[in-house]
Amino acid sequence: MSQTRIVEVRAGILKKNDELARALRARFEQAGVFVVNLVSSPGTGKTQFLERTLTDLVAAGVRAAALVGDLETDNDAKRLARSGAPARQINTHGRCHLEAEMIGDFLGEWDLASLDFLFIENVGNLVCTAGYDLGEQMRVVMLATTEGEDKPSKYPPLFSSGDAFVITKIDLAEAAEFDRVAAHRSLRDLRPEVPIFETSAKKNLGMDEWLHFLMEKSAKVPAL
Amino acid sequence: MSQTRIVEVRAGILKKNDELARALRARFEQAGVFVVNLVSSPGTGKTQFLERTLTDLVAAGVRAAALVGDLETDNDAKRLARSGAPARQINTHGRCHLEAEMIGDFLGEWDLASLDFLFIENVGNLVCTAGYDLGEQMRVVMLATTEGEDKPSKYPPLFSSGDAFVITKIDLAEAAEFDRVAAHRSLRDLRPEVPIFETSAKKNLGMDEWLHFLMEKSAKVPAL
Repeated sequence: MSQTRIVEVRAGILKKNDELARALRARFEQAGVFVVNLVSSPGTGKTQFLERTLTDLVAAGVRAAALVGDLETDNDAKRLARSGAPARQINTHGRCHLEAEMIGDFLGEWDLASLDFLFIENVGNLVCTAGYDLGEQMRVVMLATTEGEDKPSKYPPLFSSGDAFVITKIDLAEAAEFDRVAAHRSLRDLRPEVPIFETSAKKNLGMDEWLHFLMEKSAKVPAL
Repeated sequence: MSQTRIVEVRAGILKKNDELARALRARFEQAGVFVVNLVSSPGTGKTQFLERTLTDLVAAGVRAAALVGDLETDNDAKRLARSGAPARQINTHGRCHLEAEMIGDFLGEWDLASLDFLFIENVGNLVCTAGYDLGEQMRVVMLATTEGEDKPSKYPPLFSSGDAFVITKIDLAEAAEFDRVAAHRSLRDLRPEVPIFETSAKKNLGMDEWLHFLMEKSAKVPAL
């Protein structure tokens, strides 16, 4: 039993995941739903950011829903449901990431064509989530001002996979002595052309720019 | 290629790790060095907390050293070396946790008997690090005030494995609207008898209580 063996087994699982993700992506595109995968460290504020995003979308008449992955508990789905959007919890039973197969299983009966957006909040993890394509059209990698500016250079596989970066808890930037220039540089070093949004869901800062980008990127009616 | 298969392979790796960890623990005890494994989410402030701990120990004439694991970069070892204590970086090349074998390899030539304490700063991860015993005598699970009080209930395997809990960034508690009672309750629910330390390494808060506990627990001369 060796590390080489587990690497081989994992490569097989990733290959199968890629195939399932391709099928999911085709299904999403056919249904006309734009799917966003949110990834970050635990505690970055994915749930609060997503709750605010869903609330704003619902208020604007946009049809949005959420799937949220966690090892245990359904706290996050309950929080997200406060937005008025449908939200379901996927319990990973100890696994540190979501997989395309789990998404497919949970979408069983959902009428995807009735949705404009589906947000998938992944398990909080800067390592395991990187290799698992969930069929999303956009992957958003998030970083809190309280986490330190060096995270992108310490976790390059995940940050390099981002189609958009969201910096959260910008209201705490000063208290946390957040070095904005260093953070942007560490993101830019990995992905020079990927947009960076600075937000505080709690204080409602920077959300308009993010929502505008989301509508534009998804080519949905810019209702906001 | 199935999830069942990867679970079997992983069980084998964990079993081998447990054997290596037992041998390491015997070696540490024989050398009289007290070994502490620090685990948390990325961005909790493990490095800053450890740098302050090492600096204080070195100033008190205590012989301490550090091993720090990361996917990439040797930033953390450089930061820790500012304390005056020897610090080495273990690059995990993408793996989301340290393993007993990596520790054994790195300790090759170290004269462990010349040390009072060896601190192992694990890769930032609330999932993968849980199952890997590194031969430590004490596992410290850390949580920042900026991460949310729900983390222990969302990541029970890791938090349940703690011999001590350290809450970091207590200086940001008010700005982050940290719910102290809820945080203590979520830790107490998992481990009622494990001590909780509230600290800010940056502002030098709560460090004396932590260092006192460390000296007492390790049965080293209480030089502080």
